[in-house]
Order: sequence, then structure tokens, then C-alpha cells
Amino acid sequence: MNTFGRNLRLTTFGESHGKAMGGILDGVPGGIHLDIEAILRETERRRPGRNNLVTARNEADTPEFLSGLTDDFVTLGTPIGFIVRNTDHRSGDYSEMAKLYRPNHADFTYDRRYGLHEARGGGRASARETLNWVIGGAIARQIPCMRDIHINAKVVEIGGVRGSEEELNAVVAEAMKRGDSVGAIVECVIEGVPAGKGNPVFGKLHARLAAAMMSINAVKGFEYGDGFSAAAMYGTEHADIFTTKDGRIITETNHSGGIQGGISNGMPITFRVAFKPTPTLLQDIRTVDTEGHEALLRGRGRHDACVALRGVPVVEAMAALTICDELLV
Amino acid sequence: MNTFGRNLRLTTFGESHGKAMGGILDGVPGGIHLDIEAILRETERRRPGRNNLVTARNEADTPEFLSGLTDDFVTLGTPIGFIVRNTDHRSGDYSEMAKLYRPNHADFTYDRRYGLHEARGGGRASARETLNWVIGGAIARQIPCMRDIHINAKVVEIGGVRGSEEELNAVVAEAMKRGDSVGAIVECVIEGVPAGKGNPVFGKLHARLAAAMMSINAVKGFEYGDGFSAAAMYGTEHADIFTTKDGRIITETNHSGGIQGGISNGMPITFRVAFKPTPTLLQDIRTVDTEGHEALLRGRGRHDACVALRGVPVVEAMAALTICDELLV
Amino acid sequence: MNTFGRNLRLTTFGESHGKAMGGILDGVPGGIHLDIEAILRETERRRPGRNNLVTARNEADTPEFLSGLTDDFVTLGTPIGFIVRNTDHRSGDYSEMAKLYRPNHADFTYDRRYGLHEARGGGRASARETLNWVIGGAIARQIPCMRDIHINAKVVEIGGVRGSEEELNAVVAEAMKRGDSVGAIVECVIEGVPAGKGNPVFGKLHARLAAAMMSINAVKGFEYGDGFSAAAMYGTEHADIFTTKDGRIITETNHSGGIQGGISNGMPITFRVAFKPTPTLLQDIRTVDTEGHEALLRGRGRHDACVALRGVPVVEAMAALTICDELLV
Amino acid sequence: MNTFGRNLRLTTFGESHGKAMGGILDGVPGGIHLDIEAILRETERRRPGRNNLVTARNEADTPEFLSGLTDDFVTLGTPIGFIVRNTDHRSGDYSEMAKLYRPNHADFTYDRRYGLHEARGGGRASARETLNWVIGGAIARQIPCMRDIHINAKVVEIGGVRGSEEELNAVVAEAMKRGDSVGAIVECVIEGVPAGKGNPVFGKLHARLAAAMMSINAVKGFEYGDGFSAAAMYGTEHADIFTTKDGRIITETNHSGGIQGGISNGMPITFRVAFKPTPTLLQDIRTVDTEGHEALLRGRGRHDACVALRGVPVVEAMAALTICDELLV
Repeated sequence: MNTFGRNLRLTTFGESHGKAMGGILDGVPGGIHLDIEAILRETERRRPGRNNLVTARNEADTPEFLSGLTDDFVTLGTPIGFIVRNTDHRSGDYSEMAKLYRPNHADFTYDRRYGLHEARGGGRASARETLNWVIGGAIARQIPCMRDIHINAKVVEIGGVRGSEEELNAVVAEAMKRGDSVGAIVECVIEGVPAGKGNPVFGKLHARLAAAMMSINAVKGFEYGDGFSAAAMYGTEHADIFTTKDGRIITETNHSGGIQGGISNGMPITFRVAFKPTPTLLQDIRTVDTEGHEALLRGRGRHDACVALRGVPVVEAMAALTICDELLV
Repeated sequence: MNTFGRNLRLTTFGESHGKAMGGILDGVPGGIHLDIEAILRETERRRPGRNNLVTARNEADTPEFLSGLTDDFVTLGTPIGFIVRNTDHRSGDYSEMAKLYRPNHADFTYDRRYGLHEARGGGRASARETLNWVIGGAIARQIPCMRDIHINAKVVEIGGVRGSEEELNAVVAEAMKRGDSVGAIVECVIEGVPAGKGNPVFGKLHARLAAAMMSINAVKGFEYGDGFSAAAMYGTEHADIFTTKDGRIITETNHSGGIQGGISNGMPITFRVAFKPTPTLLQDIRTVDTEGHEALLRGRGRHDACVALRGVPVVEAMAALTICDELLV
Repeated sequence: MNTFGRNLRLTTFGESHGKAMGGILDGVPGGIHLDIEAILRETERRRPGRNNLVTARNEADTPEFLSGLTDDFVTLGTPIGFIVRNTDHRSGDYSEMAKLYRPNHADFTYDRRYGLHEARGGGRASARETLNWVIGGAIARQIPCMRDIHINAKVVEIGGVRGSEEELNAVVAEAMKRGDSVGAIVECVIEGVPAGKGNPVFGKLHARLAAAMMSINAVKGFEYGDGFSAAAMYGTEHADIFTTKDGRIITETNHSGGIQGGISNGMPITFRVAFKPTPTLLQDIRTVDTEGHEALLRGRGRHDACVALRGVPVVEAMAALTICDELLV
Repeated sequence: MNTFGRNLRLTTFGESHGKAMGGILDGVPGGIHLDIEAILRETERRRPGRNNLVTARNEADTPEFLSGLTDDFVTLGTPIGFIVRNTDHRSGDYSEMAKLYRPNHADFTYDRRYGLHEARGGGRASARETLNWVIGGAIARQIPCMRDIHINAKVVEIGGVRGSEEELNAVVAEAMKRGDSVGAIVECVIEGVPAGKGNPVFGKLHARLAAAMMSINAVKGFEYGDGFSAAAMYGTEHADIFTTKDGRIITETNHSGGIQGGISNGMPITFRVAFKPTPTLLQDIRTVDTEGHEALLRGRGRHDACVALRGVPVVEAMAALTICDELLV
């Protein structure tokens, strides 16, 4: 349940306010000189506190690599173990949560699943877990089979508003001011995947991408190609006519989103991911305690008003892990 | 790639115009007296030719059970093998497809993946494969852990139109008359799943449902709870306030769709699935042949103008296989 | 539990006296023209009744291929489904077994595991299941990556006697005359596996071979290279000195059995498999019934006095499935 | 390849002379108060340098737990991440190995598999990896389903000699004096497993135990019950007659080793594991370098003259992980 992938397997651990996050990336071929700076750039992209729109928690977020690499960062083909210490506990902020179930968080369901839940900051259900994924994804992007693959995600809609980055940020800032949070849509395009990658039936490339994206905290929906819009279309509108260009068979349009029958067709792979508004609010909110008694949860501390902002590198990382898993042989 | 599930595993085979479809359902406990009629009712629901809106192909679709059962249909705990003969080949209808790539079908991608593709009727990529799933799902629903689980799917929107069954059918009939096809949305509600089922991180219940649904032919999108609508909402609107009713903790609303942190919270699990319009059209359509030369594909034969209609029992079957897999211990 | 392999996956079903045995072989590349005669030669090698030393049950044992192949037996890359009808039920022979636990059979343990057991002939625990494996292995041997791999097994010891085929057969014949059965050792050599195949730690090549061989009915032990003899040796005796021959690094001896650290070193892979005596005897034997009451099990019907004789093609088939799984990329 | 288990999954990393060893144990239920001292006792049992028969390397071998536990060591149900720093590098001892292939080590095969090998002390192929397994096994033994399970292994034969611990130690001491090493057999008995545990066909309990044991460094053979001796027996000798004792069905003898048809029958599970002599010798030995040129490998440094001595807790740990995996639901 804490392992992702088949040929390239990322297994992770860590509670948000425990000693450390970490993971094991298994299946990386030997002899690759890793660019550590490139990995740190990715962890920096998802780091809280980069600007005034995301939570101010100060995390160093620098992984320590414990295995699988020579001293000069050449991969050995053996599993790459890494950890990131959690330096900013501030567990006091979360003290009252032990007894109250925060709405739309996983406190209640973890209690029902495991008989107890980590009171401090969401524990294993915290978005801090995605730091492990960003590290794994950043390594995946450096594996030779990924050389010509380009993965780019961006926020295209916040709170129902489409527009420039400025307009989108204004929606977040306004929600933040009210102690509220807001949902968003992230769009991702993967270019360079050759035709014929993926598998039929239960291993469809888009089903794997869906599972990867639906694993991201706060994600409520996934669509590829025309997605839900295709449900409102006629077959004649949706058809991607084949044609030949420079001796290569392509489609004139890309309603299919680069995948047909679960297998890539050589066109860009396009998909969209819906993020719900962060459940943490800076307002008081009604709830119950672990005994089922009505209670008031005080809004305080820090929060991300729009998790999708930090979700962009996470979407890319999970896309990289998924695609690399398909390309590795 | 042809196996679904972890505790309850369905492995399938069969090309649409090969000798037979079939599968092996592994993990069914011993001592269950199977209701074969209930299985046949499900296969009948997805059968083509039931009314004038779905393809007229005449398929008996009656499974022969080869193992895992006593003569009086009590399960042995061993894998249940079954086959369904393909009686209606009419391969002549598909003879020209060998050389032409049908737009939005998997002919081209299978060629790139395997070096050849089954010319007759879509082969392994045909929706006929879902017959295997419906059989598997119908057995899953009879496993004791599923006794109190109710799974109900229905078409809620066709071609952008929401309305009564009559109105929806009119959209399909109109498309059919033009030799066109049309997309649709199927909604599914699963009731009775107790709180605490599912797993965190990479085994999230909604991620498994997403992968299951995205495996269905023609599906382009999946969302649960408020889904893509949540991306346009504020946190204060989306919050599911906990309360106590009859001594049980529930939520006042169900924006979350019955799952929080990947684990069921005891509320109904709700999700929606977007089907694209069937790629097969009864109109001539431009394409290329396997050499890349421009060609015209003649529209003829039979087709489903709206695959989502037959997709309803398939959605339920995959939901049943997914939920049963989580509940089985 | 009924699936073997990772890249090449064989999933099987069938009780010995049910309607049919069968399986699905998933992962075979497309475009291979299968030699069906070669498959039948292998099933013939394991067929009962070939000579007077093995059980006289008359089984046609001819698989019907239902999918994954064109009409002229070219693989499509899709799963190959096959079944073999059980034509020789004679269930009367087994009628009394429903209530008695046969010593060293799986009747008792299946009862405890599943709450019931298939009374007729061992059900799923019958050696008839290995017919599925022989079919799977015979296909595996025809996959191009296996072109230069030679797998040869033979019985090297029966009832503690080493000697010519004639001498070994005499031991079996003598046991048979007394209504007794006898154990044996099968040795297998795999030539042609290049150096560098297999995986470290929990995916060691010899651990996979061990699991494969220990899956065969009646097998009680597995050793590779010097095996248990190595436990009585000194390091100086056991060392395989490296040397160079024709520009290729080889070892002067092969105590290691072709595998070091779980990975092939290019030398022949050698292993031995211990088969216990068949538990079915043609003598009366004490036991208990399902209620725990003492009873006498009558020795009658047919039996294999030495299952290892028919085990030889099964050992080769499981070796082929294991090696092919490692070589397929 | 670095993950063991299905319900209880241990994923490990670490090269013997890298920064740290470590692992993630996933699947441990929540709410268990771990006895850390019991874990340290197990790591102490396998620690080098305990007496003068095993290598003098000084390793602290104390795990740091990074997740999955509260501050007072109660399990959270989330994955337990742990690391053990490698404090005793002494990499100089291994400097010349970079260019020479040590006979019977994995240097050559890792080179062929990954294109390079970790020169320092065996890297990932080192027996130091088994420290991770002992930690995992020690946790497994504390899971409630293991409460009545007793696992006991011991060395029963060294260099072909059976006898008292004193006599066995004398064989090792004598080999050590000559700078040689010696093989051994470890026997293990698992008591308390109820009847009906394990699975048929490809999930047989003894096949899983075999794969677990064959994963241990230097192991060349596995047998259960009568093992290879059964190959020299007649069916009448080998029969385990059922009888009833205190209202429970048992067998009068235990030739089967507690498993029939892959499923436990309630009798003690017995198996034996053959260890080869350690390949590291304190004598000069011929070999080749990575270019294939003849060379002399100098015998020096430290070594275990008989790895089986330290293998005893490793056998128990892998048995615990295997059995717990079967018992966990």
C-alpha cells in the first residue's frame, strides 16, 4: 500500500511530525550519474513557504541518500534509500486534534482503519508524504529512457476562474484573507512518449496515470484527452483522423489525449486533475470528538489555501514515475 | 496486465472474434452456493441486441463453468475457470480493417505495441472483453462479505443532456439515425461499505476505483464525491461536518463521496464515469492504411451508438470486484 | 496463489475430476509462430499410461487454444487461454474418500483451509494440475529469448539407488508389485543462460527456481550446485576459480551451480529436486474419517508408484517458465 | 526485488560499506506496543564479533526507527522505517577488490548485471543486508497473530560433522586456523501454526519458506520434513498415519514436516537449510581481474569461517516474516 510501480518501485514511509520522511527507489539501472541539484530544484518547487500563498512551515527538505549511489552519485543498480528529517515539529499546534475529528481530513477514517491515528499534523495522511514522491520522480526523470520525455503541469483554474497567473493568485489571496481555502484544476502534458507504450485491459496507461494522480492528497477527479467533455460530444466531433506527416502516422487532432486502447499513440499525453479546497481552515468549524460529542474546532496555525499550487511538481513527479515505469525494460 | 485485484483476482483472455472469451476468478472462499441465474441476469444486462439502441449482434453470452465448483455450484475455494464461446463471428464484416487503422480504435496502437493486431472486430481491445468482467463481478457480489453492499449505476447524461430515460434515449436514437454516436456519463452509488475500509497512500480506495473504471473501454474520466466541481468550490462549502446519529458518527453532507484519506467513512461512496462516443460510425471516415497511405473507411455493419448504455452493468461489476477485494480478508 | 511469474504469467485452474483443466499464459510477445506439435510432445511426456510403470488413466491431454493466437497459431501478444477437458472421470473409484482423510494427501489440510475438499481424486491438489504447467512451459520454450537455452532433466536416483535406467525401473517395478511406492531425485541442467541474469536479495534466480520446484506435487527438497554436499565442504574445496577461455571469463569448476549472488555467471545452472514416494498405495492403510474416527482406507484403483518419472517434464516446464520470466524484457 | 512478503512487506536497502542499511516494514497492524529490547537481542545474536569464531568487525547494529511508531513505540499501522548506520567502513581492506573478481562472490555477476559493482565489501550482496531482515523478523514476532508461534533454529552439522556444540565449534576453529572456511546445516522447527494455513499450487507454504531461505547469503539447499531422505524411502515408510488425540486430528509421525499440499496440518513445521563455506578465505587464491587477466587475490582482513553460525537468527527471522505473512489477515 506504500509501494508505487512495477519496474521502478517507490516505497515510502513517514508521518508529517515523526522523525523523518523517506523512501526506497528500486529498479534504477546502474551507471547513471545523478544530478543532485536537479532533485533539489524539484523539492524546492513543492516546498511550503516559498511565497505568501503557501504555508509558512520552514522545512529544509533536503534528502540524505543512504544507499544505491557511489560517493560521487553514480547509481549502483541497487535500491536508493533516502530520508528527509522533519525539523519543524511544533507539535503543540496540533495538540487539540488528538481528540477532535477534523472535517474532510483522514483522522476519523484512520481511527476506524487502525484503531488509532497520529494526532500530530495528519501523520501519514499529510501532504508532506508527497515530498518522498517528488524525490522519487526527480530521480526517475534522470533515467536514460526518460531522456526525450517532457512533462509539464500547471494550474489552469482556481475556484472556477480561468485566467492569468495573476488572476488565479488573486482568487487564492482572497480566500486566504477570509481564512478559507479553494479548489483548483491542474493540467499536465507529457510529450515524447513514443507510440506503443502501455498495456491493454487492466494495465492501461491512462488507468495507471489515473491511479497515480488519485493518490495525490486532495485530488477528486482525473480525466485525459477530452475527458468529461467527451461525454457531451458526438463521435464525428471526437474522431482523431489519422494522417501521415514526415513519414510518420499521426492524428490531425488529439481528442484521445495521446492514448488509444490503453497504449500511447505518439501524440502528446494530456490529462487534468481536480484538487478539492484544502480541508484545513482558519475559521472555527463544528465537528465531533472521538466519543462522538459535538465540539468546535478552532481555526488557527498555518495552512495552504490552495494545495494545487504545491501539487504541480507532485503531479509531474507521479507522471514521471508512471511513465518511467512503462518505459523501463 | 490481464489480471485485476489482489485478494480476489480476475484474470481474463479472449479476442472478440476468437474462439472464446473467458477468465479465472481466484480467491473466492469455499462453501458458497452460487446463484447462477443471478450471474446470467448480469450478462443479459450487458448483452448487445436487447433493444434497438444497442448493437444487434446475437450473442448467447452464457458462461460455462469449468472448475472451482461442485456439480451443484458450491464453491470449492479453488479458482473458478469459465469460458464463453464466441458464436457470432461474421468475420467478413471486418475483412478490410486488417489494412486500415480505424480512428479512435486501438488498431494502430496494438500494431505499434505487438507488431500486429487482430483484425477481426477489435480483438482484445473489443468491449466484448467486459463480458468476462460482468461474470466476475456477478460472482463477487455473492461472496458473503458483500451481503450488505448495494451497488447501483445509471446513465445520468447523454450528449450533454440530463433528463428522463426517455429524453436520454431520444439523444441516442437521433445520433443513431445519422450514423453517429454520442458520449455519456454514468453515475454509481455504493451503499453499505463500513467505515475503515481501504488503504492509505498508494492503495487509496478511490484510486483503485479510478483504475477499475478507467479500464473500461471508452472511459475518459473519473471523479468521486464532488469531483471536478470541488475544484470550483471553497473549503467552507466543501466541508462535510461530522455529527452523531443513532450513536454513529456520520457527516451531515457527502461532498467527500464516502472516502477520506483513501479510506471509507461509512457514507455512500459516489462516483461518476465519463464515456466518450463510440468510435465506430456508420459514416465514411478518412484514415490511413498500415503503410500510412490515405484511405477511406466505409461505415457499415453494426455499432453501439452509445456504449455507456451497456457500460452500466460493467461499471457495477468493476465496482463489485474492487470493493470485494477490499472487504475480503 | 494460482499465478506463477512476473513478466510471463501462468494462471491456472482445474480439479482433477472437474470438467476441465486450463490456464492463461500472459506476457507472450506477438508474432511468434507456435509449433503446436512441440507442445503436444511435452504433454505426451508427462501423460499417464505411457508405459507399465505409470498410472494407466487414459487422458487425451490435448489442449484447446481459445485466444491469443491467429488461426495459423501466430501469437497476438494477448493472453493465450487454453483448456484440456477431463474425459476420464471414473469418479466411483474415489467415492469413499469423501469421508476418509488419505494419509500424506491434502484432503485434511484443504478441509481445514476451505471448509470442504473436492473428494474426487485430489481435486486441485492432484498432479493433474501439472499438465497446465507443461503446456505453459512448452510455449515458454518457443519464445525467442529462449532460443539458445537448453533444459534437460532426468531421474538420477530412485529409492536410494543410483544406476542405469534399467536398474532404476527395477526399483519401481518391485515397489509396484508390493502395492508400494518409492521416492526419487531428479537432476536438471540449464545451459545457455548468459551471465548477468537474475536479481539480488529477494529475487535471486535460485530462490525463484526453488519456489518453482517446491510447487511441484510431492517435492520435498531443492538444492543447486553442490547443494547439501557443500555443507560438508571446506571453502578451499568449494572455490570456483575464475579463468579466461576464448576471451570469456568462466570458472574452472561449477560448485556454485551457475549462480552467484542470485545472478547467473554463464556456467550451466544445475539443481536437484527430491520427490517423496507417492502417497497413494495399493495396500490397506489406517487413517481417520472427517469426524476423527479410526478407519481403514482400502488400497485399490490405479497409482503412480514413482511420481518423479512423470515429474521430469514438469521440472523442465517449471524451469522454462522461470528462466523465460527472467529473460523476457 | 528488494521486497519480501505480501501482507507483511519488508523492503530493504543498503550496501555493506555505504552510509547505512535500512528498510521499511509495511503491514504491521496499529496499536502494538513494540518491545525494542527484544529487537536488539535479535540483532545482537547475528552481530559479528560476539565470539572468536565470527568476524571481529565492530558494528553497533542499533536501528533508529523513523516512522510508524509513537514516541513510546506503539505501532500506528503505518510503515515502519528504520536505518542502521554503517560505522565501521575500513574501506581500505577492500581496495584491491575493485579490480579482481573474488571467487564465489557476486562481484563478477553484479558487473554483468549492472555494468559495475560496489567494490567495498560486497556491497548489496554482503551478508550485512541480513541485519535488515533480523530487524523485520523481530518486529514480525511481536505481531499478535504470532503469539503462539515458536520458531527455533540451530546448527546441526558443520563440515559433515554432527555432534555437540563443542565438537561443531572445534571444526570451525580448525578451519579458521588454516585460513579456511566450512559449510554447515541449520535446522529449524516452527511450532504452533494451526492447521489450514498456506495456499495451494503456486503459493505453497513450503515453497514460500524455500524462497525465503534460499534468499539468505550462502544457502545452497532447502528441504522440509524428510526432505532428500524421502527420495530414498518407500511410501509405506513415509506415510504419516492420521489419528485422534484429545479430540484433535494429528499424525502419528511427521515425515511430512507439518505441511501437506502446501497447507499446514497442525504438526510442527520442520526444515533444513544448507550453507556453503564462506567464500572469503585467508589464503591466497587464483582469480582474474575485470579484464580477464590471471591474478592472485591475497587472503587477508577478517572473515566468518562458518557463516551458518550467524545465519541461525537470520533463518528464524525469515521464517517469522514468512509465517506472519500467512497468518496476517
